[in-house]
Amino acid sequence: MELKNSYVHGYDLKENIRLQDQASTLVELLHSDTIYPAGSKILEAGCGVGAQTLTLARNSPEALFTSVDISEHSILTARLNAEAAGITNVRFDQGDIFHLPFEPNSFDHVFVCFVLEHLPLPVEALKILKSHLKIGGSMTVIEGDHGSAYFFPDSESAHKAISCQVELQKRSGGNANIGRELYPLLHEAGFGTIHVSPRLVYVDAGKPELVEGFTKKTFTAMIEGVRELALAAGLTDKNTFDKGIQDLYRTTEPDGVFCYTFFKAVAF
Amino acid sequence: MELKNSYVHGYDLKENIRLQDQASTLVELLHSDTIYPAGSKILEAGCGVGAQTLTLARNSPEALFTSVDISEHSILTARLNAEAAGITNVRFDQGDIFHLPFEPNSFDHVFVCFVLEHLPLPVEALKILKSHLKIGGSMTVIEGDHGSAYFFPDSESAHKAISCQVELQKRSGGNANIGRELYPLLHEAGFGTIHVSPRLVYVDAGKPELVEGFTKKTFTAMIEGVRELALAAGLTDKNTFDKGIQDLYRTTEPDGVFCYTFFKAVAF
Repeated sequence: MELKNSYVHGYDLKENIRLQDQASTLVELLHSDTIYPAGSKILEAGCGVGAQTLTLARNSPEALFTSVDISEHSILTARLNAEAAGITNVRFDQGDIFHLPFEPNSFDHVFVCFVLEHLPLPVEALKILKSHLKIGGSMTVIEGDHGSAYFFPDSESAHKAISCQVELQKRSGGNANIGRELYPLLHEAGFGTIHVSPRLVYVDAGKPELVEGFTKKTFTAMIEGVRELALAAGLTDKNTFDKGIQDLYRTTEPDGVFCYTFFKAVAF
Repeated sequence: MELKNSYVHGYDLKENIRLQDQASTLVELLHSDTIYPAGSKILEAGCGVGAQTLTLARNSPEALFTSVDISEHSILTARLNAEAAGITNVRFDQGDIFHLPFEPNSFDHVFVCFVLEHLPLPVEALKILKSHLKIGGSMTVIEGDHGSAYFFPDSESAHKAISCQVELQKRSGGNANIGRELYPLLHEAGFGTIHVSPRLVYVDAGKPELVEGFTKKTFTAMIEGVRELALAAGLTDKNTFDKGIQDLYRTTEPDGVFCYTFFKAVAF
């Protein structure tokens, strides 16, 4: 199964750069508290091009990671990225979450980041991943939530442009507002103890790195990236969409503010 | 000047309880990092019935607070609340932010919480308060932002009910979405160093105190409280509004999630 055509963010080079940007500007916020013990075996499901993998592997240099992705192309890129970074504690495999080539109860921990948002059956995926956990193992899930985006100056056009992305992702079977749902999803998948920690990215002119790295290059670039698909699908018209993007960039001016929240859950 | 009739939350007993509830369930989140040095003089502008005052005074028992509010009735209540709590380091005065009976440069710090949201001229208010600060003093501002409310299950009716409150507050000259604007407002008021810290209140079934204390008794109760005004103003119809409230309560069921963000700014 290859989701390439329905993966709304696309797999091109620009996207690759965006995901890397995202991981490097948000790395502290999202990953600094994920540290695995020496010798523990971790399954990273849906590693993509390895944007989070390098951070994970560096933060826990004595843990052993198995990172899988459904896209052969992404796995190849991830492997090259890891080699270039001198990472030696990760094994990369092409694999589908719904048909994993591993024994049940074979991992100490599972890590899933920006994956559930693309899956039509997120609870099923969590159940399968859970079956690969050893007793007492933990599951870490990180997802964004586009409904958590708000900004100053506020703009109806900007919200409309964002909703094009949300609608396209929905039509591909995904859910761009899944972050807020981590608690009920993990509960439904059978986890007992669930701790959800929201990570709000707050950006004002006092944080120029986030203005560039998050508001412009991560979030707005992502919304801008669905322009052609949104127009082709008749979700909006050119002027409204372009006004929305312009208004998102407007929030990066000296008096602008941009807020977005990621949700990180750890379940046992 | 008495804003009683245009103060959208009202001054009745139920409201008094709600503000107290809000302060006591959110007290840790909002106030635990506000501690003033012994002997410092602090102006609390717009103290209302003293919901935050008691916490402020307890956190900094050797600082001297002067807490003012435009409502004589609120000041009387605040004074009684403080006396009942055994607080001795606060002086309460009736007073209008725009005509304060104090000398310029007479306070070490200024504290403003849930006040700017009600003022038609928030930047002017900040400028006046700033003029009462000594050189090197700090200004702490805390405000909510109703545009930061999102939840699971999502509901258009719930968002519409919230927007009634936002619209009524706007018609009274206020801004219920002012939290996100603290940085530009403080900047416009002439502050140099501005640090904004968002405080996201995340509520799921694992946090029963917040389900009760925040989602039900603070936020939903507040929206429910504008029902008659919203209907009288023709902003909505009975069924839509009541469905919205029902959907807000729905988020407090075991699989529900509710998110809201307060913004705390400290400026110098």
